[in-house]
Amino acid sequence: MATINKNYNKLDVSYFFLQVTKKAKDFLKENPGVTLYKLGIGNTTQALPPAVIAGLETGVKKLGNIKTYTGYGDEQGDARLREALAKYYGEKNIKIDPLEIFISDGAKTDCANILSIFSDRSIVCIQNPVYPVYVDSAIIAGKKVVFIKAGQSNGFVPKPPRQKVDLIYIASPNNPTGAVFSKGQLKEFVDYALKNKAVIIFDAAYAQFVQDKNLPGSIFEIEGAKECAIEINSFSKWAGFTGVRLGWAVVPMDLRVEDVNKGKVNSLWNRRQTTMFNGACNIAQEGGLAVLSPEGQKECKKIIDYYMGNAKIIREGLVKMGLRVFGGDNAPYIWLKVPDGLSSWEFFDKLLRQAHVLTIPGNGFGAEGEGYMRLSAFGDKEDTIKAIKSIEENLKI
Amino acid sequence: MATINKNYNKLDVSYFFLQVTKKAKDFLKENPGVTLYKLGIGNTTQALPPAVIAGLETGVKKLGNIKTYTGYGDEQGDARLREALAKYYGEKNIKIDPLEIFISDGAKTDCANILSIFSDRSIVCIQNPVYPVYVDSAIIAGKKVVFIKAGQSNGFVPKPPRQKVDLIYIASPNNPTGAVFSKGQLKEFVDYALKNKAVIIFDAAYAQFVQDKNLPGSIFEIEGAKECAIEINSFSKWAGFTGVRLGWAVVPMDLRVEDVNKGKVNSLWNRRQTTMFNGACNIAQEGGLAVLSPEGQKECKKIIDYYMGNAKIIREGLVKMGLRVFGGDNAPYIWLKVPDGLSSWEFFDKLLRQAHVLTIPGNGFGAEGEGYMRLSAFGDKEDTIKAIKSIEENLKI
Repeated sequence: MATINKNYNKLDVSYFFLQVTKKAKDFLKENPGVTLYKLGIGNTTQALPPAVIAGLETGVKKLGNIKTYTGYGDEQGDARLREALAKYYGEKNIKIDPLEIFISDGAKTDCANILSIFSDRSIVCIQNPVYPVYVDSAIIAGKKVVFIKAGQSNGFVPKPPRQKVDLIYIASPNNPTGAVFSKGQLKEFVDYALKNKAVIIFDAAYAQFVQDKNLPGSIFEIEGAKECAIEINSFSKWAGFTGVRLGWAVVPMDLRVEDVNKGKVNSLWNRRQTTMFNGACNIAQEGGLAVLSPEGQKECKKIIDYYMGNAKIIREGLVKMGLRVFGGDNAPYIWLKVPDGLSSWEFFDKLLRQAHVLTIPGNGFGAEGEGYMRLSAFGDKEDTIKAIKSIEENLKI
Repeated sequence: MATINKNYNKLDVSYFFLQVTKKAKDFLKENPGVTLYKLGIGNTTQALPPAVIAGLETGVKKLGNIKTYTGYGDEQGDARLREALAKYYGEKNIKIDPLEIFISDGAKTDCANILSIFSDRSIVCIQNPVYPVYVDSAIIAGKKVVFIKAGQSNGFVPKPPRQKVDLIYIASPNNPTGAVFSKGQLKEFVDYALKNKAVIIFDAAYAQFVQDKNLPGSIFEIEGAKECAIEINSFSKWAGFTGVRLGWAVVPMDLRVEDVNKGKVNSLWNRRQTTMFNGACNIAQEGGLAVLSPEGQKECKKIIDYYMGNAKIIREGLVKMGLRVFGGDNAPYIWLKVPDGLSSWEFFDKLLRQAHVLTIPGNGFGAEGEGYMRLSAFGDKEDTIKAIKSIEENLKI
């Protein structure tokens, strides 16, 4: 008699973003012909640049010729890509062995699946507000979740928990707040993890958007992190691979947990991936190599600059209207404080109905996000300008 | 204090196939210059046909143009591909709604991840010998595994278990034995599942290799299966997508389990996939559409025929030598009975050392595989002929 995993019943009824989509659809149905400005979606919109397209095309071409055709690759990823990523870290003075790098189909799967290698009795510490995947996948896995607040009073960067926890998710730059941990703030967490033998799961999916050279783009810039942290990253946002699907995890050989020796966590993740994953798409991996080439890096940088230009337009436009905004300087997200004591959903409705601008209510990222909105810089520049103009002209604050 | 998921300690030390690779490497080191004939690997080798390459190229081209660029798609897959697959089933007189189809990055991940939606206290029934992923992923998830024997005495097709179980993995055609369930044999399992409210996870990754039109290529050819079965399939083997990564699962709306109503299992899988997966590569999905086009189907059929031609060469060659073989008529695998009471590894070594032929020992697929070898038809035709000739000329039986 099959029975279900009842942990699913502890999740919210539906994924928050579906509700946003539904509200937008309903509005358009009631108001046919209206153009909506999308300032909410965390999805890339710009075309892939020529060098990356050329890389993907190479990947396809290889499959059409028996001499270059490849079937199953290593589940851990193409050795060339693992080496290119090790080199990529090396250029930032971070020494990573290619064997510590595992190519995946994206950060979302890695962030969720990494829980598999840790005990179900783990206490998982998660900042709030945050990307919902950490919380939901921890609940599905039956692990206990505790939150650490990342609100306005601490600049949206949390302090290490007071209680003892086993696993800690850190997203820096954070989605949705756009807040970035300083080296000092990150060091507090590394110290905590070393002291308490906890493991930090560091989601660096937005690291490439960091403009301030003093802010860390990798947790491995912090001394001791290799003994207590796993880093997850992705080609999704900075290289436009949201639909192509490619990411990676760094599981250091030096990583220690209480009940096993050095190297064991790396080998557990290796076992998990070889058993339950079959490698990332070989065409995508060929594209990833092109992203990491000097030409690819130059081209992707331009797209990052484009999005960060949008972030500036949003930030400055809102500030000009007298609104309180955070983030948007080292991340493609702007975290807007809802004025007049309105709730996130109330302000969402106002922006939608008065300005025809679609945003994401902050409470979708946790209770501490209530009273905020996430605005995204991933749109088209002209549309972003129009959206801000529409808010300026039509929103009655 | 982080601790590991100790279920990993219950797994074999390393994935079996790595040992095969190691032995081959060691042999080549001791015997430089020798050419090994690969008759073991379950990996596609033939180039993708023109229509499929054109589909993949379309996928890449779209990403290079802002008007056709797509980022995140639906986690459940491209609506066009879900519809094309529903039509594909429809042509076989099986009615599947596109909402019942979930596109994935392959059957391996689906076969492993599907366990997430069922209780950890589930008893999982698995045929033996079998593809190791079902067993390993069930052990990692902490679920209890019971085996049903699929040996020579029952034509390598097991009977339903006598005890009550909750989940049943069935692979038909089976990897490694090449055995295919008849409709009657499958009906016994459907009847068992309906009676005991168990769920069958039907892995049909080799269904397209079935030549005998009386044998079922989908469990949904059996009446009542929609109330008790999930079907998993893949573009890997029949369309050469082992490296491209694309598959699908059918989770019927009518599926019932004891503690939840109709539609709930479908919605649980939807929740699992939207939370912990981010969709298959959009280029791969464009390729999948090309595979399902009339031209793509014609071209893929030719490649299937090519591999099945290899299977015939292997089967007939071995029979001519007086060896006992099974499978290979409706599946790309030949299941060879080891002669003279040798163990699988002993015969593996003999084939390697005497005939320079690399195979897979049957015991890698479970205890009941001991005394057998898996030979694969996925090679080049000329190499297959040479391998069989080498066995004929050099193996001392």
